[in-house]
Amino acid sequence: MPQLSDHSLVPANIRDLSPYVAGKTIEEVKAAYNPPEISKLASNENRMGCSSLVRPAVVKALEEVQDYPDPVAQQLREALAQQNNVSPENIIVGAGSESLIANLCRTFFDDNEHAITADATFVGFFVQINIRGVSLKKVPLTSDFRFDLEAIADAITSETKMVYIANPNNPTGTYVTKTEFERFMHRVPDHVLVVMDEAYYEYAESVADYPDSLQYDFDNIITLRTFSKAYGLAGFRVGYAIASPKIIGNMMKTKLTFEPTSLGQEAALAALQDTAFLRKSNKRVQEGKKRLYTFFEKRNVSYVPSVANSVLIQLRGEQQAIDFVQAMLEEGVILRRVHAFGLPRCVRITIGRKKEMDHFVHAFGKVKSKIS
Amino acid sequence: MPQLSDHSLVPANIRDLSPYVAGKTIEEVKAAYNPPEISKLASNENRMGCSSLVRPAVVKALEEVQDYPDPVAQQLREALAQQNNVSPENIIVGAGSESLIANLCRTFFDDNEHAITADATFVGFFVQINIRGVSLKKVPLTSDFRFDLEAIADAITSETKMVYIANPNNPTGTYVTKTEFERFMHRVPDHVLVVMDEAYYEYAESVADYPDSLQYDFDNIITLRTFSKAYGLAGFRVGYAIASPKIIGNMMKTKLTFEPTSLGQEAALAALQDTAFLRKSNKRVQEGKKRLYTFFEKRNVSYVPSVANSVLIQLRGEQQAIDFVQAMLEEGVILRRVHAFGLPRCVRITIGRKKEMDHFVHAFGKVKSKIS
Repeated sequence: MPQLSDHSLVPANIRDLSPYVAGKTIEEVKAAYNPPEISKLASNENRMGCSSLVRPAVVKALEEVQDYPDPVAQQLREALAQQNNVSPENIIVGAGSESLIANLCRTFFDDNEHAITADATFVGFFVQINIRGVSLKKVPLTSDFRFDLEAIADAITSETKMVYIANPNNPTGTYVTKTEFERFMHRVPDHVLVVMDEAYYEYAESVADYPDSLQYDFDNIITLRTFSKAYGLAGFRVGYAIASPKIIGNMMKTKLTFEPTSLGQEAALAALQDTAFLRKSNKRVQEGKKRLYTFFEKRNVSYVPSVANSVLIQLRGEQQAIDFVQAMLEEGVILRRVHAFGLPRCVRITIGRKKEMDHFVHAFGKVKSKIS
Repeated sequence: MPQLSDHSLVPANIRDLSPYVAGKTIEEVKAAYNPPEISKLASNENRMGCSSLVRPAVVKALEEVQDYPDPVAQQLREALAQQNNVSPENIIVGAGSESLIANLCRTFFDDNEHAITADATFVGFFVQINIRGVSLKKVPLTSDFRFDLEAIADAITSETKMVYIANPNNPTGTYVTKTEFERFMHRVPDHVLVVMDEAYYEYAESVADYPDSLQYDFDNIITLRTFSKAYGLAGFRVGYAIASPKIIGNMMKTKLTFEPTSLGQEAALAALQDTAFLRKSNKRVQEGKKRLYTFFEKRNVSYVPSVANSVLIQLRGEQQAIDFVQAMLEEGVILRRVHAFGLPRCVRITIGRKKEMDHFVHAFGKVKSKIS
């Protein structure tokens, strides 16, 4: 009998995976460089925190934390159904968008089927497809860092099970327009599931030609939304998918029974009520982006205009990106390289509070020679 | 192109699955039958709640709930490593045992490999194997409701990747002894992963011939433990696996990046410190079990002695089990039928607080004709 060699232990698709490497934590940055202040602008979290309604709801839910969560998250589904003018049967709640993406991958693929997405988008989709062991066609972004829906439609075959479109895209912050999306949907065959990952929806919904995928009546669209970004609840892991009852019914078969946590369900319910918080923190993000655009234009830094809560900059080469992120880290500004997302020369900057953006601007001034 | 028929939408193994059907909630029982009191003895939760150290830890963690959790749960792994005299590289933390079981299924199987377990054990393992689409051999329990390790060892072939043993077993509350486990491990080839699901470990560890799987030096043992049972944190979804670094390293590749939640990690860390709570609530469980045994013996009810926090009773037939659970429900006592676990004639009773056990005993007296 073989021993526990790597070869016999796991199949090839798992052997080839690498584990996630976490960015530096605030504590680690402090220990390594001891900068006077630290700004975490690496993970597109809501630097304004979350709604003040969350805390009392969570404290109350703690009274019954010995009990398993509601496996169908009925109250939260009903609230989301009302907000989005659909029925609870159209909704599944999961432990963040990543869990829903994992669910999509384990539910719908036959071994011979494949997925299509862009060559520079959310790395979580690449990973989950690899774990499922089906193949993934990556279609290049357009020259202005946007999903090329015409090229994706051209790549569809009878073995295509799923197309994944992040809109707004992560890490670019770009979006596909209504016209592009509508033309695309009319080219996509009915057997292809179109996953619209709208994790950054709340930042983009007011953009005139941004297509809200819930406004389209196609049975093969799956819309993903999350409480991890604009709602400021990343620590809780709560996301949801909206689709036809047939799609949702199959996803309900493969979800983890008790995801998400009971406290996460209550936190999300509370956060949903607080539209004022959402408006206020979105406004700060818009202001922060404008400030960065002006700042980058003055310094001839190549940036990508964004409808999300981050801005991507492109440096001359991969080594410049590595050096820049390291230099900023030593100044206490934690940024994200996005080589794993397919963009080795780029760095993603989360829009934070004014104080954090002051810090970014100040640190950038000190290290700017690194990116010239 | 085919439409979204069930046939083309999902592969056969998913088509054949049923979604989880939740038991009645306290609110639903109240609305339907309005009993004077309600006792939830259906899900083997800790009816004594959780440690009082949890609440302040969670309230503090709420201050940073906009941030993603530590993807490797480093602090919690270090605390668990210390407690269990292993190193952090031997530990992975996940969103409950179910998530770890799902992780095991998606990490280690080639399509031609299979798993072996008992025909009456935790339904979550059956479900995750079906989702992975590999085959499962179910070996009958012994006549005294215990895992038959000799028969399982006999069933192993070169295509066996995994053996799943719940010890104590759920829903029977029985256990395999040290002698049985040692004999089994010496028969199991090295290429077979032996998953020891010890979700109820804390209730059983003081039993003289109960084998703590961490005390055995085999590279192919994977031990699963959880905060959902004795620690009273089911709502938070935190479990962990302990195994060789090679096994853990592969599981780290396929875990959801940010499981479990940041608040769950903090709650678990706090709960770990409170050994007094664990001792006290375990003592109540032991008292509750003894009381039930005496009660059932007097009434000639067939029960299975348990080293977990539940007791299984066996009725004359499946219909009697259905009728009994329904009659108890109308009295406000929520119990669990375990047909999905492979035991259609049996009902599982979680040991609750004294008040809840009084309620059980009283209601049982009223409905006992249903099980005669």
